[in-house]
Formats: sequence, C-alpha cells, structure tokens
Amino acid sequence: MQVDAERLRADIEATGEFGRVPTDEGWGRTVRCGTEANREAREYLVERLRDAGLTVAVDAVGNVAGRWDPDSADPDAAPVAVGSHLDSVPEGGIFDGPLGVYAALETVRAMQDAGVEAERPVVVVSFTEEEGGRFGDGLLGSSVAAGERSVADAIALADDDGTTLGDALDDIDFRGEGRLDASEWDAWYELHIEQDTRLESAGVPVGVVTTITGITHCHVEILGEANHAGATPMDQRTDALAAASEFVLDVEATATEVVAEDSETAVGTVGSATVSPNATNVVPGRVELGVDVRDVTREAMETIVESARASLSVLAADRGVETSFERPFDLDPTAMSDRLRSAAHDAGDRAGVETIDLHSGAAHDTMHVASVTDACLLFAPSEDGISHNPREWTDWADCATATRVLAGAVADAAGGRPAGGT
Amino acid sequence: MQVDAERLRADIEATGEFGRVPTDEGWGRTVRCGTEANREAREYLVERLRDAGLTVAVDAVGNVAGRWDPDSADPDAAPVAVGSHLDSVPEGGIFDGPLGVYAALETVRAMQDAGVEAERPVVVVSFTEEEGGRFGDGLLGSSVAAGERSVADAIALADDDGTTLGDALDDIDFRGEGRLDASEWDAWYELHIEQDTRLESAGVPVGVVTTITGITHCHVEILGEANHAGATPMDQRTDALAAASEFVLDVEATATEVVAEDSETAVGTVGSATVSPNATNVVPGRVELGVDVRDVTREAMETIVESARASLSVLAADRGVETSFERPFDLDPTAMSDRLRSAAHDAGDRAGVETIDLHSGAAHDTMHVASVTDACLLFAPSEDGISHNPREWTDWADCATATRVLAGAVADAAGGRPAGGT
Repeated sequence: MQVDAERLRADIEATGEFGRVPTDEGWGRTVRCGTEANREAREYLVERLRDAGLTVAVDAVGNVAGRWDPDSADPDAAPVAVGSHLDSVPEGGIFDGPLGVYAALETVRAMQDAGVEAERPVVVVSFTEEEGGRFGDGLLGSSVAAGERSVADAIALADDDGTTLGDALDDIDFRGEGRLDASEWDAWYELHIEQDTRLESAGVPVGVVTTITGITHCHVEILGEANHAGATPMDQRTDALAAASEFVLDVEATATEVVAEDSETAVGTVGSATVSPNATNVVPGRVELGVDVRDVTREAMETIVESARASLSVLAADRGVETSFERPFDLDPTAMSDRLRSAAHDAGDRAGVETIDLHSGAAHDTMHVASVTDACLLFAPSEDGISHNPREWTDWADCATATRVLAGAVADAAGGRPAGGT
Repeated sequence: MQVDAERLRADIEATGEFGRVPTDEGWGRTVRCGTEANREAREYLVERLRDAGLTVAVDAVGNVAGRWDPDSADPDAAPVAVGSHLDSVPEGGIFDGPLGVYAALETVRAMQDAGVEAERPVVVVSFTEEEGGRFGDGLLGSSVAAGERSVADAIALADDDGTTLGDALDDIDFRGEGRLDASEWDAWYELHIEQDTRLESAGVPVGVVTTITGITHCHVEILGEANHAGATPMDQRTDALAAASEFVLDVEATATEVVAEDSETAVGTVGSATVSPNATNVVPGRVELGVDVRDVTREAMETIVESARASLSVLAADRGVETSFERPFDLDPTAMSDRLRSAAHDAGDRAGVETIDLHSGAAHDTMHVASVTDACLLFAPSEDGISHNPREWTDWADCATATRVLAGAVADAAGGRPAGGT
C-alpha cells in the first residue's frame, strides 16, 4: 500500500504556518491550546478530514475525530483509531503532533486509494492539549477519552489568567458535545517523532515502542525574602534564586547518578523557573520551579522524586527558605499491546521497511488510551534527536516511510488488506 | 523648625494607593515609570506642589520640579534642590522614593510655616525612573539632569515591547520641555530610607551618608539547547538552567568571599533570571540573568565582576553552553559633600536629634547630582532593613524626625534660619 508523500508533506507544512514564530534556524511554531493558532490548525484539519469523506465530530473537551465508514465495514464493529495532537510547546517544531495526525489521515486516504476493504471503521483523532502548559500538565484530551478525567473537571481547568478550557474552546468554536470514548475502540495506533537519536544512530526509519516511560511532574515553590540588592549584606539574605539554583543542580546530579547506577533510561529535569520580583537590583524573594521525572521503572522515578524532596529539606535548614512541593501529575510506565506491535513489525516486513523495538522516553496520549484498549506507538527518526525546538526535524522521506508502515498496521487491524497489493 | 508629621504621612499614604498590590503583609505598590500608576503619583505631587505655592515645571524626560521663590531670596541665586523619586520596583514598598519627595515638599512647607527668610530659592524634585527595569538600569532622570546622558538618548530608550520613554511620557502627559539642570544648583539634599539595619541597630533616627557605593549591572545570557525533557538522555543535554544555576551560586560564593577577605561592604546578586522556553517538559535552552555588584571600593567590585566572567568561561568549557556578558551600567563610588554633611549634623544638633555617619549600599539619584554640584544623602531607619518589598517600613515618627533634620539642613544651605526658632 502506497502513501502520497507530497500530500502528507503539504498538510504538515500548512499546519506549520499556524502560530509560526521567527527563528534563525529551522521552523518554529507556538500553538497553545485554545489560541487563535490552535483554531487555525484545527479548522484546517476539519477541512482535510471532510475532503477525504470522513464524518467529523468534536467532543466537549475539543477532541476532534474524523470517522471513515467504508462500505465493506460493519458500522457496529469497534473501530480502529489512529492519530496524535496539533498543539505545541512554546517555540516548538512542526512534526511533534502534526506528523501523527496527518499520517493518520494519510493512512485513511491510502486505504481508500488502494481499495482496502476494511471490516472496521477507522477514526482519525486529534487530542486536545497534549503538551500541557496552559490548562494542565499534558495529555488532557486523551485523559478524558480514556475516562481518567471527567469532562466537567477538564473544562473547568483554568490558565494563569483565569480563562477555563471551556471558555477557550468556546472562543475558538471548538467546544463540541459528548465525549470521545477510547474504550469503544478495538485498537489505537499513534505515529510520533522519536525525539531521541536511537533510530538515527541505527539507520532505521521506524521504531515500534515496547514501553512508554512513567512520568511525574512536581511543582516546587521556594520562598526567601525579597530585599534591596545593594543595601542587604551578603550574610543577611534569604535569596530564593540561590536556593533554587542548588535545587536545580541537585536534581541534575541525582538523575545522572540514577542513570549510572540503576536505570539508564531515567531523566530528571527542572524545565521552568519563574523568579519574583525578577529585577536586577532586588534579592529574589520567590522562585517557582517545574520538575519533570521519567523512567521505564517506577523505582528509579521514586528515587529521583524523593531526592528532590530531600534537597528542599536541606535548603530549608541551611538557607532558611520556606519550600512547598506538589506532585500534580503522575503516570505509571505503560507497556504497548503485543498484538499491535507484531502487526506493526509485520507491516514493515511487507513494505520492505526495517523496524526495531525501543522504549519511549516521552509521554504520549497513547499512555492514556492504553489503559482502556490495545494501543501501540510508532516512531519516526528525529534529526540529532532535537525536539520541542524549531530545529526539530524529520526527513520527509522518513515521514512517508513511517506512514506507510502505520497504514499497513492500521489496515491489518481494521481487518483489511489492500486489494491486489502488499 | 517644626514639620507637620500628619501632613507628611497623609501625602505618603496617598501616594501608596497608586499601583497598590494585594499583599498578605505590609503595603505593596508597583509603580513602573510611565504607567497609569506613575501618572497618578505624579499628578498628585503636582497638585500638592501647587497647593504650597510652588511653580511646577516638567522637563523633556519627565523630571518634575516645584520651585519656591520666597520674597527674601535673590531670584538669580543658585537654588538649593531637594527631592527623590516616585517610581517603585515591582511589588515594592511605599517609603522608597516617596518619603524623600514628600519630605522635600514638607521642608518647604515647614520653612514657609516658620517664616524662614531664605536667600536662595528651593526646588523640590522628583526624578524619572530611579529604580530602572523598564527603560534602563536606574537613575535615569538624574543622569539627564547631571548631563551624563542626553535628553535625546533618554527619550529613545525602549522597553521590552518597543515603547520608548518619550512615548510612555506622552501617554501619561508628563513629557515636558527643556532639561532640569542640576549643575545650576548650589546644593542638593536627598532623604531616603536606609534599606539596611544599621540605624535600627544603633537606635539612631538619622544617618548622614559618607560615601555611596559604586554599582555595576551585568547582563548575562547562557545558551544551551532546548530539547524534550523526556526523550533527551541526561548525558546528551546542554541545559541552560543548570549552567545558570552554577553561575548564580558562583556569584554568591565570590561576593561572600570578598566580604570576608577584602571589603565587608561588598555585595553581588543575581536578581533576575528569565528562562526560555520555560515549560516543565522542555530542557531549558536559554537563560538571561541580571547581575548587580556594589561596593565602596572599586577593587572589590572588579574582583566580583571578573570572577563572574571567569565562571562563564568555565561553564562554556564544562557544559558546552554559549555565553555572553554585557556591562551596561557602571558607576564609581561617590563621596558626599563635607559642607552639606556638616550642615546636616548641625541641623540634628540644633533639633536635638542624634545623627551618625554611614555609607550607602544602595544607589541613589544623588550619585549623579554629586558629579555636578555639592550633594548630600540622609537616611531614615528601615524596620528590619527590609526594602523593595511590601514589608518595607519606616516608623512615621522616624519619617518626621528625619524630615526635621532635612528641613534644618536645607534651610541652612538656603541661607535662612527660622525666625525666632531653632
């Protein structure tokens, strides 16, 4: 089964124009959930889904689903779903999310072009706020689709300005009705960029994920005392930024130690730091930090989190700062479906495309979906492993090759094989 | 000569309402240069100056001057000027600046009430953007009044949004004409809160400053590589925030060492840190830092600055970050006028108020004025030394006592003594 590489590329490039940001290198975009750029990306998708004859539904948290009911399929059969997300981190790249959404649509178009007589409907999905950062910590739309969070809770989530997800979706005309229910799906596939260098190093165009790492987000607040930088002697300060600096280095050191001694897949990151009042001539009084901890083993994650907590206790004792620690987001490591993994490797074999097993260090909507149905995540190579950055890049030929494997696996799961082809 | 403590307090409290921010403790305000809150504070001052019969002029950079020409004075004599500033740091207190401005006005009102037959006019001054942070690094209006910066350069300074000082002053109707020229003044006094605990510890209500510390501001940029926090192994990162954390701790350690070994008045602070993209799930790619270094000796300042530069070189070598270092603001330590310092101590003696000598760790507009005429800075006590913080506080009785000494010194410098009083 062939995919149309140019059609796929055109959709990803068109999506890359929404929220595009000026950069020296690469192609950057900022598409936060519920913004004008997000509306444009969503409207473009709806148009493309309808162009391909799919029936579009938007649910109450803004998840978009385009359903293809081929004549060959039993309309009451549990569908095969496939997709990803359209939102981005601030100044992110154009492949993280959009590749998976448009590879899903291209899968349906390829099945249509090849005359695949699928026995199950196929649903192309774009989940709301995968990246997080405005209304939550990420994977928002899929958490609702998997029944892990209620619609009511989700739409009441508010951003820093007090705007709720419900309001934001109203603003962009993407607050629909009902709830996309992943438990009704027979199978789920997502194609995503790897965001690491293992495929590139191996010279292999497609990865089949074995396990997605668990992920914890911690919110840390460090309270010192804001004071005049010139008039406050060094020994009379309670500098929240100096304390936060020790914490950042402690997290880095612990994660590095865990990698060396316990689990080589572990990572620990302080990704955000917001200083108050943040003026050159004021000793910082408050710092808020966002911490991200992941691994394929729960034990390694807990080692890093507990070490971070211990670091705060030491800082409180040594520097007199007050600290608070919250852990609002926590997901276990998630294994992928053996059945769907085998189907993906088989699809690679049929297409003459090499595939390898690897784990995912990044969280994906597939983690939530996997809690209610068989799910599988595929990877396409990332140049130099760079992601969440305008320099994020995946060769267009690799995009098409990975989509071809995805299409073969989805067609297989949908009970169809291309008429007269591999 | 008596001052009206209630009149002084009423003016400071009224000023504290402009830009007031909610706080758990104390009284906070945010009055950045050229904002609506700044307009309100300025308009209130102009009204009070006119109520006292002063002639108000606003210069091309927004410096406000109210001139009192008593019948006893030679209108061509070089005036005595006295004042401070009305702007604040973000979430600052109500005494830093406003005490000096309204103590200056209260000085004139007290001289009027006491029938002082001054030989020189007295000018009450409020300088534009003392704190810095929007258009520059601080002491902006006084740098123009001292001829160290041209009017054209000043009004062209732009904030982060590209708004120039000239535009901002137009917006609040405080862009006047001409240039307030400090070199035309015979003498300058400023009363300010100490922002340190030395007066409080000594139990003395008024300090007479001997030297104002020199001050350097450095802008540091650290460039790493933004990347996915989950998919980027610990050993493949160039984390700008981890590098910045080492830098913050290096500055703190060096300043502490200089205090112990070379000059106990030295301070070094990283007051601001802005992280990009600043999302929990992204390895930080860029951090911008604002560094403040001060001392009464040039040698100690240079030791800290050179150590900060060296720290960046080490980080570039050890962590592979790119760094840049700028030093946009630098002022030498400044000695106060012996003549005016003696007059201040004498005024204290006449009023039965104890005064002591001390240095100023904070920069003040008086630094610029001192480069073109005799200048002297007085301090009132700060509770617990806290400043640039809503918990900044000075006892109202101390405000009045310090204003009484200021009024006596100004009256003396203006060649007048109260009729029939001390």
